[in-house]
Amino acid sequence: MRIVIDAMGGDHAPQKIVEGAVLASRKYSDIELILTGRKEILNKILENNHSPKNITVINTSEKIDMNESPARAIKKKKDSSIVKGLDLLHKKEADAFVSAGNTGAVMAGSLFKLGRIKGIKRPSILVSFPSKKGETILMDNGANVDCKPINLYQFAIMGQIYAKYVLGIDNPKTGLLSIGEEKAKGNQLVKESYDLIINAQEISDFVGNVEGRDIYNGSCDLVICDGFVGNVVLKTTEGVASLMFSLLKDAFTTNLRAKLGALLLKPYLAKLINKTDYRQYGGAPLLGVNGVVIISHGSSDEIAIMNAVKVARETVIQNIVSKIENKVNEDGEK
Amino acid sequence: MRIVIDAMGGDHAPQKIVEGAVLASRKYSDIELILTGRKEILNKILENNHSPKNITVINTSEKIDMNESPARAIKKKKDSSIVKGLDLLHKKEADAFVSAGNTGAVMAGSLFKLGRIKGIKRPSILVSFPSKKGETILMDNGANVDCKPINLYQFAIMGQIYAKYVLGIDNPKTGLLSIGEEKAKGNQLVKESYDLIINAQEISDFVGNVEGRDIYNGSCDLVICDGFVGNVVLKTTEGVASLMFSLLKDAFTTNLRAKLGALLLKPYLAKLINKTDYRQYGGAPLLGVNGVVIISHGSSDEIAIMNAVKVARETVIQNIVSKIENKVNEDGEK
Repeated sequence: MRIVIDAMGGDHAPQKIVEGAVLASRKYSDIELILTGRKEILNKILENNHSPKNITVINTSEKIDMNESPARAIKKKKDSSIVKGLDLLHKKEADAFVSAGNTGAVMAGSLFKLGRIKGIKRPSILVSFPSKKGETILMDNGANVDCKPINLYQFAIMGQIYAKYVLGIDNPKTGLLSIGEEKAKGNQLVKESYDLIINAQEISDFVGNVEGRDIYNGSCDLVICDGFVGNVVLKTTEGVASLMFSLLKDAFTTNLRAKLGALLLKPYLAKLINKTDYRQYGGAPLLGVNGVVIISHGSSDEIAIMNAVKVARETVIQNIVSKIENKVNEDGEK
Repeated sequence: MRIVIDAMGGDHAPQKIVEGAVLASRKYSDIELILTGRKEILNKILENNHSPKNITVINTSEKIDMNESPARAIKKKKDSSIVKGLDLLHKKEADAFVSAGNTGAVMAGSLFKLGRIKGIKRPSILVSFPSKKGETILMDNGANVDCKPINLYQFAIMGQIYAKYVLGIDNPKTGLLSIGEEKAKGNQLVKESYDLIINAQEISDFVGNVEGRDIYNGSCDLVICDGFVGNVVLKTTEGVASLMFSLLKDAFTTNLRAKLGALLLKPYLAKLINKTDYRQYGGAPLLGVNGVVIISHGSSDEIAIMNAVKVARETVIQNIVSKIENKVNEDGEK
């Protein structure tokens, strides 16, 4: 299996991205990693890390910045680490692509180079959130801001396949994000999507409407919403966690007594810190495009990249793209 | 000033609601409180609390349950604590109404009995969120799920008046909730609202698009969004905070060493706990209806009710209803 990593994308590229590739190359002996980016820079970092045999470099001369207009950048910068990486997927010279770069550009590039899975109207970004029982996956996290019921219905199908085969949840309980549990609650999109999903034979274990708090309490495995709402949920989560950690830090450093208390507690805070650390969840798969594409957080470090490779590897092994294609087309046209 | 409290609404009614009224009656000597509900029950609780002189009871025989259909309940249960309370406002026999009961029924009843402020298209629920710098108010929190740009524009006008006069923030920095700071980011509603708000002379200190995390980092004072998104943000916040407190509690009780650490830290955790305690923020004003209506959390206890009365009192003193009416109509028709 060959996994391409965009070594130039993200706040800590290329150093931490390459280090993440090195960690992944040590962890998984069954993969080959291909880095796209400035050859001389990447090779130097690899040399400092004993040049692992299962990592190769493909030189690219251009870089797509975080704030560039995605569609224009993809068309213009043909020798960028993102476009070259996706080219390899398109030509079947690689099985998956990982990037912590400009998310819009990765999405636009994936649509342009790989296209959608036959039958899928819109791709969707899947993100894992921590819950009291483990994790809850949420779709969509920003790929599509103005959705139709058919999109939410297809997100549920794709998310169930991912939950089942990659996360090993046999009957993923699926909820529709709304503002009350009753069927009548929600906006127009949610009400229409509810009717479509509840009547769809191909979606089992639909638990109906759920609320924001259900993402974290473990009452369901998969939550469906449009990409605007999902992205707001993602950034709200980051904001609340950051505020609470900041208040905790203030408390822990108030005075000597507090510092002693914090010192005693330190070993037991690992679970809290790990649970709320996005790096543990690796990357977010862009489901619905015709290839395995994993989007990593812009501030990814080596741990995040290693975990993104893990997600890419699992998604390839489990044949998620084919499974989605089969499922959507066996159900016929909607 | 007379403030009516729905003594039958909320998970802990009537006991905690009456106790909250008693606390408020002691704190504010310039208000009279009127409780609507079952007279014999309320009087008994008041007797146990030394029957404060500035609290009177108006008997009602009916109760609107939390899950009743709002519009139907308001029309049918004319002798309920909510309808009777709003009647008093309508007849100018009271200045404000506080309820921890069925939110939908309070909204429907307010629109039915009081109507909207002239010029206001849709009312909006304003909720305070904790931030690193103090608090951030967000509108709308669930009064309107499918909004038009004119609604978001009016939420900004109402929110700025409330921030200025009730919260004492002279130039409330106002952001539009989106999924990126750039003008081009967001869904159709956000993009159109952006254009309307940035060109509106009556809205100063518009900082443009903000993200979910900006609610908590203190970068703005007022955040505007539609009521579906706002309610998702509210419940997401509750969910994340609840998960983190649960993980903290696990850490604090791991073993003897952890318990000792927690004991040492305990006095310094007050700020974290207070900041994330909804009760400190009292009630959520329903702005845009022709009267002062404060919606309290369904699980309100006596502290929450006391703080809701505080919010009601301030909103009356500052003449927020008139100020909104003047502002909206001086700007002419949109």
